[in-house]
Amino acid sequence: MIDGGNSRYTDDQLHAAALAEHGIGYVDVGVSGGVWGLENGYALMAGGDAAHVEALLPVFDALRPEGPREESFVHAGEVGAGHYAKMVHNGIEYGVMQAYAEGYELLEAKDIVTNVPGTLRAWSRGTVIRSWLLDLLVKALDEDPALAAIDDWVDDSGEGRWTVDEAIENAVPLPVITAALFARFASRQPDSPALKAVAALRQQFGGHAVKPAGS
Amino acid sequence: MIDGGNSRYTDDQLHAAALAEHGIGYVDVGVSGGVWGLENGYALMAGGDAAHVEALLPVFDALRPEGPREESFVHAGEVGAGHYAKMVHNGIEYGVMQAYAEGYELLEAKDIVTNVPGTLRAWSRGTVIRSWLLDLLVKALDEDPALAAIDDWVDDSGEGRWTVDEAIENAVPLPVITAALFARFASRQPDSPALKAVAALRQQFGGHAVKPAGS
Amino acid sequence: MIDGGNSRYTDDQLHAAALAEHGIGYVDVGVSGGVWGLENGYALMAGGDAAHVEALLPVFDALRPEGPREESFVHAGEVGAGHYAKMVHNGIEYGVMQAYAEGYELLEAKDIVTNVPGTLRAWSRGTVIRSWLLDLLVKALDEDPALAAIDDWVDDSGEGRWTVDEAIENAVPLPVITAALFARFASRQPDSPALKAVAALRQQFGGHAVKPAGS
Amino acid sequence: MIDGGNSRYTDDQLHAAALAEHGIGYVDVGVSGGVWGLENGYALMAGGDAAHVEALLPVFDALRPEGPREESFVHAGEVGAGHYAKMVHNGIEYGVMQAYAEGYELLEAKDIVTNVPGTLRAWSRGTVIRSWLLDLLVKALDEDPALAAIDDWVDDSGEGRWTVDEAIENAVPLPVITAALFARFASRQPDSPALKAVAALRQQFGGHAVKPAGS
Repeated sequence: MIDGGNSRYTDDQLHAAALAEHGIGYVDVGVSGGVWGLENGYALMAGGDAAHVEALLPVFDALRPEGPREESFVHAGEVGAGHYAKMVHNGIEYGVMQAYAEGYELLEAKDIVTNVPGTLRAWSRGTVIRSWLLDLLVKALDEDPALAAIDDWVDDSGEGRWTVDEAIENAVPLPVITAALFARFASRQPDSPALKAVAALRQQFGGHAVKPAGS
Repeated sequence: MIDGGNSRYTDDQLHAAALAEHGIGYVDVGVSGGVWGLENGYALMAGGDAAHVEALLPVFDALRPEGPREESFVHAGEVGAGHYAKMVHNGIEYGVMQAYAEGYELLEAKDIVTNVPGTLRAWSRGTVIRSWLLDLLVKALDEDPALAAIDDWVDDSGEGRWTVDEAIENAVPLPVITAALFARFASRQPDSPALKAVAALRQQFGGHAVKPAGS
Repeated sequence: MIDGGNSRYTDDQLHAAALAEHGIGYVDVGVSGGVWGLENGYALMAGGDAAHVEALLPVFDALRPEGPREESFVHAGEVGAGHYAKMVHNGIEYGVMQAYAEGYELLEAKDIVTNVPGTLRAWSRGTVIRSWLLDLLVKALDEDPALAAIDDWVDDSGEGRWTVDEAIENAVPLPVITAALFARFASRQPDSPALKAVAALRQQFGGHAVKPAGS
Repeated sequence: MIDGGNSRYTDDQLHAAALAEHGIGYVDVGVSGGVWGLENGYALMAGGDAAHVEALLPVFDALRPEGPREESFVHAGEVGAGHYAKMVHNGIEYGVMQAYAEGYELLEAKDIVTNVPGTLRAWSRGTVIRSWLLDLLVKALDEDPALAAIDDWVDDSGEGRWTVDEAIENAVPLPVITAALFARFASRQPDSPALKAVAALRQQFGGHAVKPAGS
């Protein structure tokens, strides 16, 4: 059986054990590529027994982009390794997106770079930070140069949370990826209870003006 | 001359030099205590020549709280040291307030602690985190148990920014104090350009739904 | 039965259910005060049925500091609420300690405040940031003014991790508390794999010099 | 005159004003591409008067990569805009590198993905996080699969600091880029004074064991 969704790697280990009792093999496959994968091919990270993965190579070769297999496919390890790799991939994605987004905001914040979309586009070739995500941000700004039609509310699909959970469990400092996750959490709050508490504190000790709620 | 306001320590050094040309001494004094200082006395951090500071001790003793002088007064160093110390004091204040505020939010976020104001009050004596700022948060919750009347908009008066500027200049990692400052910046944004960019990116690669602006 | 250790609140819920089958009540009690509690009394946060908590009040009154009960004791909610409150208390503690610690480092980093221990001591009375933890830092600097005898290796006992886990589960942004936890993780790494990777990247694109391992 | 180095944009404004008094025009040009630019071409961000920039286009076209001009060149705005854009570019670079580096560490931290270099290589095509920096990390791991020969000490060349300075000045929250900068600062400390202070505090209140310095 192949699980190609965004499952948690610990579930793979349970599923594989349950299926093994019935003599059924299990391979977990992390998949990346977004809606563009249909056109470009999907990168694949597989976890499972070598024999099972080997047997499925024709399927994987059909799904992945053209070019050398090792540039879009890996047998990452035993069962669970495929989704663990995909989880980390998505954690990185959070951090990389937030880095571009912060840079975009800093370009917009000051009245000195007068051509912000053009500046991002000029990073497309030759720069150290060229990437597919940058290309997509350029494309988004082509369609809506000031992102005027879009709200600043950002969902998360769970893999970023699992990434931070793993960091906590393994005592790995993950400041950038976690900051990116927290920025999303904050984006969805109509009101920050923590910041209300800070405002209340400043009023208490300093007589600093607060904004009444709803103002 | 005494400068007791929230000046930047680099200004003190300029002012002292300018006044020295006219034979006028200069002592900079960082002051903490908020609006309660009038009642409790103010803590004082002085910078300047020993002789100048010595001459002003009667003034400082009149302003500071009762008790041993060294618990509410310090001759911190040469000109500028008083305001440098006060700047760091305020940076710490940002971090400490945000720590309590995050804890408060986490208590409120889950339906398990049913007496949140009472829980903070029970930390007033005996706990490791007892402090005057905690007392003030308890007081604020007495007056408005869910902080319903207060907006989550938090100003900053400049000393937090100077603290981070100094960290940058001296290559000192300051993750907590800086996170507290950024939380305030974010609290004042009607809309986050960075998070709009992240939302736009997710829509581009994943077809993830975005919220239209103004929704 | 009373569980007064640093247990996870989810364990309390399991224990209470198991004991209820045998007709045994369960109260979980978060305790704060450190090694000083023996002398000063311990602050207590209890979770459980009102009747059970009520019956134990004489025990709690004997353990807590003198003064009004509500300043060092709370019946925080049903089973688990006591340890949930203690968990949050410890999370706050991480953030508050790191805030003072960063300020201490910034005072030491620059050659302007020549009396760093005296500056911290002068914050003991009257300032906005006076607290018991500050008193302890002053005491530590009394014993060892440059902290020369102490390593920068900092353990964590689990409650900080649980706090961040809860934040992740409840989508609460916790930048300050998490940064404090990550600083501890990093303090225990003989070598940072992440920073090795950054060094390797800089060498790849910029020809920037790297330090050979072990240098 | 053209300044193509990593200058601070505020210096450009001073230089341009000084040269203008002598009737000399000034164009500042941010350049990206690292040591690979010689081969691949350099991306260029220019600031200055339209006429001056126009006159220099043949020079810029000779330096930049092949392909449409707007993908590797921008006239970003008036004098200073070129280096402002480059500064932001480098700030983004800090965040992006740290995101990959954290992911790399999390792969290495757990004994589940047994082929870490192969996993990163498999992200080269088709994934959402494919980029030139990822290609360089793959290359670095080809040369040294466990980064065993490299120290975790990471320098910074100033542009990351300027980026955070600008964020502070313009009240823009920059959690990811700043966390990446602080990780570098910490990497260069033989010893963290802040973490020594935290260790000292834990010893004071909890009797927690500390490591003696030098152990």
